[in-house]
Amino acid sequence: MANQKNREIRLKSRPVGLPTTDNFELVETAVPTPGAGQVLVRNSYISVDPYMRGRMVDRKSYVPPFQIGETLQGGAIGQVVASVDNSKLKAGDYVQSMNGWREWFVSNGNDLQKLEPAAELPAYLGALGMPGLTAYAGLLRIGALKDGERVFVSAASGAVGSIVCQIAKAKGCYVVGSAGSAEKVAYLKEIGCDRAINYKAADDLNAAVGTAFPEGIDVYFENVGGAHLEAALNHMRPGGRIPLCGMIDMYNATEPPPGPRNLAMAIGLGLTLRGFIVSSHADMLPDFHRDMAKWAKEGKMRWRETVVDGVENAPKAFIGLFSGENIGKMVVRVGPDKAV
Amino acid sequence: MANQKNREIRLKSRPVGLPTTDNFELVETAVPTPGAGQVLVRNSYISVDPYMRGRMVDRKSYVPPFQIGETLQGGAIGQVVASVDNSKLKAGDYVQSMNGWREWFVSNGNDLQKLEPAAELPAYLGALGMPGLTAYAGLLRIGALKDGERVFVSAASGAVGSIVCQIAKAKGCYVVGSAGSAEKVAYLKEIGCDRAINYKAADDLNAAVGTAFPEGIDVYFENVGGAHLEAALNHMRPGGRIPLCGMIDMYNATEPPPGPRNLAMAIGLGLTLRGFIVSSHADMLPDFHRDMAKWAKEGKMRWRETVVDGVENAPKAFIGLFSGENIGKMVVRVGPDKAV
Repeated sequence: MANQKNREIRLKSRPVGLPTTDNFELVETAVPTPGAGQVLVRNSYISVDPYMRGRMVDRKSYVPPFQIGETLQGGAIGQVVASVDNSKLKAGDYVQSMNGWREWFVSNGNDLQKLEPAAELPAYLGALGMPGLTAYAGLLRIGALKDGERVFVSAASGAVGSIVCQIAKAKGCYVVGSAGSAEKVAYLKEIGCDRAINYKAADDLNAAVGTAFPEGIDVYFENVGGAHLEAALNHMRPGGRIPLCGMIDMYNATEPPPGPRNLAMAIGLGLTLRGFIVSSHADMLPDFHRDMAKWAKEGKMRWRETVVDGVENAPKAFIGLFSGENIGKMVVRVGPDKAV
Repeated sequence: MANQKNREIRLKSRPVGLPTTDNFELVETAVPTPGAGQVLVRNSYISVDPYMRGRMVDRKSYVPPFQIGETLQGGAIGQVVASVDNSKLKAGDYVQSMNGWREWFVSNGNDLQKLEPAAELPAYLGALGMPGLTAYAGLLRIGALKDGERVFVSAASGAVGSIVCQIAKAKGCYVVGSAGSAEKVAYLKEIGCDRAINYKAADDLNAAVGTAFPEGIDVYFENVGGAHLEAALNHMRPGGRIPLCGMIDMYNATEPPPGPRNLAMAIGLGLTLRGFIVSSHADMLPDFHRDMAKWAKEGKMRWRETVVDGVENAPKAFIGLFSGENIGKMVVRVGPDKAV
């Protein structure tokens, strides 16, 4: 490792509007040397997620903003390469951390979760990780889904949306997903959606949603905001629920876009719109793992990743989230994969 | 009664924008004669409420639209003048009904609730009636208010808002109301609000809300929509709740106004926005009556009405709701008051 270099991505400047690669900086450093009790970890996969855009803005939020010049943070899966008498981790162990956007790091182990991979590594950044739990908690707890209901999902082919669709199908629901290309629509059919809307090809999203839901929507899983939320509101059933998971349509807006003009429909219909972040629902992890394993075994749960190679391409992968370049979870391979 | 005439208000045309008196028609008819088993009722007070504006539009909603040429409907308190062997009601009984906007009517009694008035009659159209229950259910069930929380109320001097403020105070909360005149602000102080905002005098509503809530808002009781909702969202605490009771700001809009630009704040803060209508919460009536009697006895609950005289002035009273001409409940006196 003496000759090896670590490469990492730092925030060079705060993006205005859609981020560009100029907002990021690739920096080469020495691979750090673990001290007593520490481990040296080589990352295999790192995560890029839409929520990270919010952390690039300098404002008070539920997670503190990234600082200019600092290495970016995010989910990562890696392997311990050396352990200097760390009491819990030894060389060869797989670990999950928030030390993404870099190839190597050292840690005393307190910020690492040991992983016993039973699936391909990137799944732990997607379906079996934070986005999967987001789908699970958002649909079942926040959305209070009941078996057999009518479910609409935006950004349905994404990391969270594609799991939402399949959980709802596993619960016997009628499920319609919206996505932005013919390829994605085909994927939604593959994973069991009853119908799929290509919103980029639809002349009138509101009409398309109405056609897909002749009896209305019980749960709209909100990942997008804007026209999707307005269209969904127009077709909600009395007592309907709208888990607010993300509003990717506005993350890069330089002027805050207007909200839905028809929010007052929530009054007469008794609708609930409820925002949430996954970290508030960590108590659901055991149920989540149990159910996902069961559904996967029954052939009811599939996932895929869009894999970009090389830490130097992490900014491009991140930026690509906002033009929908991923199907399933977007991850960046930054090191050796699991030896299977 | 043979020589007496009944006067009633019919919908003449559907309002576009703010209703005008031309949308209504005063019609004189004979006082109807009760048949076998029926009662003849003389109304004393009738209710005008913002929600009625929605029923003047020809669209599917939670209550069917008013029809052109029909007598308008709404809450009313009256007295039985004659009973032709009705099994439950006799002359002199006070009754509550939805047969408002008229002076006289006959009924078989099935659509009437007998009233044993323990307060002045108009209170049963306001604090002790539908608006009072709206406040109670909206704040305690929909808003899930906890003792000692921080509560913001818009249209706070109105029929619903003024009761919301006092329930919150009875629960030991910090309460700030917003209203549209110095007189209303003085009334809010009278009924115990910790602070009151005159939104018409405030240069910057958002800043005024921020100043009033240095520690943020736990529950925002929404009666108004528009700038009030946006300002409240900017100052909500994590886990905050927003019962959506009304959005009077948009009831007369000919073009639907944009929604709040900052709805995405609900995600990170885990906010719940929940619409409701009072008729879904009739099961709370016994608790409501018990608590209101207790609070009134303890001096913690007061109310007032803005009384307009004469059924011919009901349209003007109704239209006045939208320019805030009422403090407390707006009612129209259309017949003899209770003989006290």
